[in-house]
Amino acid sequence: MEVKKQVEILKIKGGVNEYLKDDVIVEHPFTIFINDKELVTILCTPRDLKELTVGFLFSENYIDDINEIKAMDIGEGCKTINVIVKERTQTLRDKYRGRRTITSGCGKNTSFYNIVDSKTSMKITKRLPISPSSVVQLMGEFNKLSVLFKETGGVHSCGLGRVDGILFYAEDIGRHNALDKVLGSGHLSGLSFEDTLVLSTGRISSEMLIKAAKRKIPLIISRSAPTSLAVELAKELGISLIGFARGNKMNIYNNFSEY
Amino acid sequence: MEVKKQVEILKIKGGVNEYLKDDVIVEHPFTIFINDKELVTILCTPRDLKELTVGFLFSENYIDDINEIKAMDIGEGCKTINVIVKERTQTLRDKYRGRRTITSGCGKNTSFYNIVDSKTSMKITKRLPISPSSVVQLMGEFNKLSVLFKETGGVHSCGLGRVDGILFYAEDIGRHNALDKVLGSGHLSGLSFEDTLVLSTGRISSEMLIKAAKRKIPLIISRSAPTSLAVELAKELGISLIGFARGNKMNIYNNFSEY
Repeated sequence: MEVKKQVEILKIKGGVNEYLKDDVIVEHPFTIFINDKELVTILCTPRDLKELTVGFLFSENYIDDINEIKAMDIGEGCKTINVIVKERTQTLRDKYRGRRTITSGCGKNTSFYNIVDSKTSMKITKRLPISPSSVVQLMGEFNKLSVLFKETGGVHSCGLGRVDGILFYAEDIGRHNALDKVLGSGHLSGLSFEDTLVLSTGRISSEMLIKAAKRKIPLIISRSAPTSLAVELAKELGISLIGFARGNKMNIYNNFSEY
Repeated sequence: MEVKKQVEILKIKGGVNEYLKDDVIVEHPFTIFINDKELVTILCTPRDLKELTVGFLFSENYIDDINEIKAMDIGEGCKTINVIVKERTQTLRDKYRGRRTITSGCGKNTSFYNIVDSKTSMKITKRLPISPSSVVQLMGEFNKLSVLFKETGGVHSCGLGRVDGILFYAEDIGRHNALDKVLGSGHLSGLSFEDTLVLSTGRISSEMLIKAAKRKIPLIISRSAPTSLAVELAKELGISLIGFARGNKMNIYNNFSEY
């Protein structure tokens, strides 16, 4: 499916008007069904939709093992996906109730605060030390992959990798979707997340930290700012957090002794 | 309440390590109750919380007249607000059910797609022509107000104004929250929105269009990119959409004849 669309625009620059064609990023409503029951509609960039679905279902605790998924069928026009999962607990069935819509900026979660509350049980003990020069190199590699952003200016990017290189890369109008996509790729490929790291162009808020913590990912690097809650959670969960990673600069928010 | 927090960071630049104090933006969980029943938790920047509440309740169709609100009481530590509203329809009470958490990027909405579906009834017919030089001037004024972004790099800004100047301004970790804040200010001051415009630093996705359309706001200007769905909705709803408004440049997406 097309992820960008050409539209006619009037470009004005210093008093000069020019009509031309320009690319805008596609915002696509995508509805996830579980065992034929509607779960949620996500506004997203229509690429890597199976990966997005898997990442989302893990992030939101609908599944916790990739083998719970028996099949995934994408509907006509990529507007829907039906995920056939093994029947599980009442908890899961309870979640089916109601109908929610998730917009582009969101990794929405009814159980979000339950997770924050149980953060002591999510503590990550395995470390992933990284040298500043490796951060610079990874972010350089990461920025080169950002094609859709250069074309449309309308997406965030996420990468999932190891210290020596990027394994998966995704772009989406929503930074949470982009993260769910690369995490979904990891789940689908049977990746062990314990020695991986997340790269992001977007601001790091608490939900991004929690998505990483659920997979025991020990390191997050972003070219943007973290929030106070992300910094606090990083310290409590033992996730190393690096922000403002641009060129040969970066800000380290915890685990200082590793640098 | 403090909207930024000083944390110790290790700044690395070209191989030189420096420990210093830096400001990060506060991410604050804020729970809205209606008539003592929990409605939603929003992750936000803890400033203009009454305005955020009012804007959110209008955006999500919990109220459609400011006079429905009899009182608003902010709890200790600004963690909660209890909004006393006049008893209304079953529709409203139905919405009380369940508990949702809304993260920083979101103006989340169970009824979102109902609104998209009913867009023909929301068509805006009153125009608000603006000259390119007024756009440049407004965005210049708007950018000067962005103090928290300069300090933390972690917020989006929104303005609500008229062609000749900005009336309300807000910053928040979430671009939807920032918009709800200025819209809430408008509602609280009894503003008629029909000759107002929205200014934003953030990308314009469909939810931003819909929030504006609900108030009959005829013009949105952003320094960032719109999505395809935002462009389509702008055309269908009759809202003028200007993106990439930076310096003396801008991209116009519809209503070309006005420029």
